[in-house]
Amino acid sequence: MSLLVVGTVAFDSVQTPFGKVDRVLGGSATYFSYSASFFCPVRLVSVIGSDFPEDHLSMLRDRGVDLEGLEKHDGDTFAWTGRYEGDMNEAETLDVALNVYGDYLPSLPESYQDSRFVFLANGSPESQMKVLDQVKDPKLVVADTMNHWITSAPDGLKDLLKRIDALVLNEGEAKMLCDEQNLVTAGERILTMGPRLVIIKKGEYGSFMLSRDGARFAIPAFPVDVVKDPTGAGDSFAGGMMGYLAKNDACDDGSIRRAMVFGTCMSSFVVEDFSLDPFKRLDKDGFWNRYHEFVRFITV
Amino acid sequence: MSLLVVGTVAFDSVQTPFGKVDRVLGGSATYFSYSASFFCPVRLVSVIGSDFPEDHLSMLRDRGVDLEGLEKHDGDTFAWTGRYEGDMNEAETLDVALNVYGDYLPSLPESYQDSRFVFLANGSPESQMKVLDQVKDPKLVVADTMNHWITSAPDGLKDLLKRIDALVLNEGEAKMLCDEQNLVTAGERILTMGPRLVIIKKGEYGSFMLSRDGARFAIPAFPVDVVKDPTGAGDSFAGGMMGYLAKNDACDDGSIRRAMVFGTCMSSFVVEDFSLDPFKRLDKDGFWNRYHEFVRFITV
Repeated sequence: MSLLVVGTVAFDSVQTPFGKVDRVLGGSATYFSYSASFFCPVRLVSVIGSDFPEDHLSMLRDRGVDLEGLEKHDGDTFAWTGRYEGDMNEAETLDVALNVYGDYLPSLPESYQDSRFVFLANGSPESQMKVLDQVKDPKLVVADTMNHWITSAPDGLKDLLKRIDALVLNEGEAKMLCDEQNLVTAGERILTMGPRLVIIKKGEYGSFMLSRDGARFAIPAFPVDVVKDPTGAGDSFAGGMMGYLAKNDACDDGSIRRAMVFGTCMSSFVVEDFSLDPFKRLDKDGFWNRYHEFVRFITV
Repeated sequence: MSLLVVGTVAFDSVQTPFGKVDRVLGGSATYFSYSASFFCPVRLVSVIGSDFPEDHLSMLRDRGVDLEGLEKHDGDTFAWTGRYEGDMNEAETLDVALNVYGDYLPSLPESYQDSRFVFLANGSPESQMKVLDQVKDPKLVVADTMNHWITSAPDGLKDLLKRIDALVLNEGEAKMLCDEQNLVTAGERILTMGPRLVIIKKGEYGSFMLSRDGARFAIPAFPVDVVKDPTGAGDSFAGGMMGYLAKNDACDDGSIRRAMVFGTCMSSFVVEDFSLDPFKRLDKDGFWNRYHEFVRFITV
């Protein structure tokens, strides 16, 4: 089933206790797409600048990522600089250069408008809704958001929440969105704002799902021995999850639970090294070994 | 199978955003015993002062807790005063009055010396080892410890670790014990210090087990809607876990996993109200309803 993602394609400069990389391939839509591409083809909507190298594009194309929706504008590509320290659970943003992303409003090629599974990676609620306006009959719309939009665009976010099926967000953001310290209460409150499903990402503590029909589900993260760079973990989680759902054309409770397992496995790889390097080294055997190890890890 | 616990019996004065209680029944051995008593009889080793009311004792006896090992000394009972704020994951200790506990070294009645399952609740490594000296042929020895002993009695703790089967401790304590931020690495390092099993308690994030034979297992905590008072959660977890193991006379990998589920259920009750109140209200139906809800919560 068709899977669409809108988000950033970016250059990341990242420093962690394990090293430093400069202007490597990053961005929410990139991590999401590469992760989802292990399960199904992906349609990518984003913008890059004239400085973006062709070999990144051909690499994504080779993974089955459709780039018809990736616009190239005059100027520089979106660039993020950040640092992780201590328990590595949160990035410190050192610099954001929006560049061509600054005045970009996503526009869908006609061939994308029949997309059934849609992931709106972190972005302004305005741009996220602009995408929804262009999708004709989506089966499952999942959005991510961030503290930035919770404080700077609360009304837009409120409108967006009424138009999506599921919200995926970090623990701190869930608490902030509801001004509530108890995560269960925060999750329940988000369900009253529109989505029928909330998936809360807790980093190394795993993820937690609540649905409006009363289902609740949680899984730990895979125990990664060395976390070198957490960048992209959340989007890789979403990519594995949505890739699994789109592949199976499903969004029932059991499928969502299984999809969270697949998402957790994908995010466990990506943190093991910088940028998309772990994905580039990953083959089917590597994936299924991790999957079975994770299932043993969570099975009573 | 016989289950022995040594730890504190105390008066707790606790303040949380949900209220305040003064000199209520608390202590590690108390929480452990009451929790384990849902599964099997318990032998309790501790000390109380002459101010300790008889009705607390008869309540414990009614639960099947053997109090032959509970000494009564002249003076006041151990008293702890603490406060929880914000995310309620950690207590702030406001006052500790050791009282009769100050110069107490545990002594086992002869009838306890054949105990097969032994839990050494948080205490000085010296006193924990003194208990081990008096147990003839234990099948499973599990100890808890705290940051206080990690810094003030590192050598004693090192000796203790060589004599126990399993160490149960909080996430922050595990990291402190190994001076290591990655919890997986910390857990593996503890396994090289003696115990064949480490169980790391992560509060609202659940628990994580590593064993020397390579098994790893994690479960989330039960999603409690209102956490009124986290006091005793860790000891109630250990009580449910050890109670289950002692009842089944088992300590294989599968039993440990199931035992952690039972422990998690027990700790989920105790945080719902102050002191032991939630346990006092708990019956078999209430327990099994929670158990089945939790199993649904963690089942893919």
